[in-house]
Amino acid sequence: MITVTAFKWVPPFARGLVRDLRVRWALEEAGIPYKTRLIGPDDQASPEYRALQPFGQVPVLEENGLALFESGSILLHVGERSETLLPKDPAGRARAITWVFAALNSIETVVQPLVGIDLFYEGQEWAKLRRPEAEAAVKRRLSELAESLGTKEYLDGRFTAGDLMMTTVLRLLRHTPLVKAEPRIAAFQERCEKRPAFQRALEGQMTDLGVS
Amino acid sequence: MITVTAFKWVPPFARGLVRDLRVRWALEEAGIPYKTRLIGPDDQASPEYRALQPFGQVPVLEENGLALFESGSILLHVGERSETLLPKDPAGRARAITWVFAALNSIETVVQPLVGIDLFYEGQEWAKLRRPEAEAAVKRRLSELAESLGTKEYLDGRFTAGDLMMTTVLRLLRHTPLVKAEPRIAAFQERCEKRPAFQRALEGQMTDLGVS
Repeated sequence: MITVTAFKWVPPFARGLVRDLRVRWALEEAGIPYKTRLIGPDDQASPEYRALQPFGQVPVLEENGLALFESGSILLHVGERSETLLPKDPAGRARAITWVFAALNSIETVVQPLVGIDLFYEGQEWAKLRRPEAEAAVKRRLSELAESLGTKEYLDGRFTAGDLMMTTVLRLLRHTPLVKAEPRIAAFQERCEKRPAFQRALEGQMTDLGVS
Repeated sequence: MITVTAFKWVPPFARGLVRDLRVRWALEEAGIPYKTRLIGPDDQASPEYRALQPFGQVPVLEENGLALFESGSILLHVGERSETLLPKDPAGRARAITWVFAALNSIETVVQPLVGIDLFYEGQEWAKLRRPEAEAAVKRRLSELAESLGTKEYLDGRFTAGDLMMTTVLRLLRHTPLVKAEPRIAAFQERCEKRPAFQRALEGQMTDLGVS
């Protein structure tokens, strides 16, 4: 059976946001059962865990001797077994993969600095000085994303792995009003989070964190 | 024939770093001919280009009516046609894809803030205050990467798309002594950049930028 690593404990602001959520959601969409292996700081620093994950992070997926890290890579790996996540037609599949990368590299790379400023470095002088520009960058990207989404229900028309990844990135902004300010994006996120597979994945993470 | 978009002009500090280099390199490794379409700020802002690339960036790959963006996604797309980039055995392929994501999401996400501070925001008060921690974060990640590389020639033993992507990310640090400070990583980068396909890709970007 597939094993996914997740954290034993995280502070309240991170609950429902940790990256194992992406893998749980993908496995739920694919209908593939899995178990979790819960780890803490000592495990993260151990040579055994570093051999699986060089940077000590979660999630790692283990299955029959194969160990993969990076939520994006695991999402594509699981996607190979689920047409819900990756369409079979090559062009649709390539576009779904494009949106996985866009979520991680065009949106999260702009979102994460703002999240860092607000949740990790709040009160520091540099963070106060930097925040306005970091927020403006997020607003610009969300506006471009809304323009691209247009009146479609999902980024490439139908739900794919790209929408899954994008939703988990948008969730990082939940402490801000920025997604609500883009009604199309807010509706898109809500549409994705209503999926039963997402709800089960979220419940799985909360249960493992002892919050249920 | 495949068309790849690239910039007509960039300032000197960006020459040899623009992301179309990744796609050129992949196509050269795969032995697939391509032509470039050079664009400027007006093209980037145009509705026609935004329909292909929602954020106005390069590269976009176009082929027989399919248009893809995100260098990571394009690299995997080209990789489907090249065993040099993506091994045929499923486990090796999955690990190569993992390193593509690791380059973009575990290394570049830490490298890019330092590059921004040094090349885009130099002299700003927040950048001065923030730099020491941003640099320390890069050093930590490079040390973890060196540990993972160990005595191997490439990240997963043999050259793959993951090494290609990692090399282009390490190049972003060329204005700093940080890669040289990790001899294994420096030797890895040099080994990858010695590949004839890389040399042809770099020459292609420089020629299109009018610097050759």
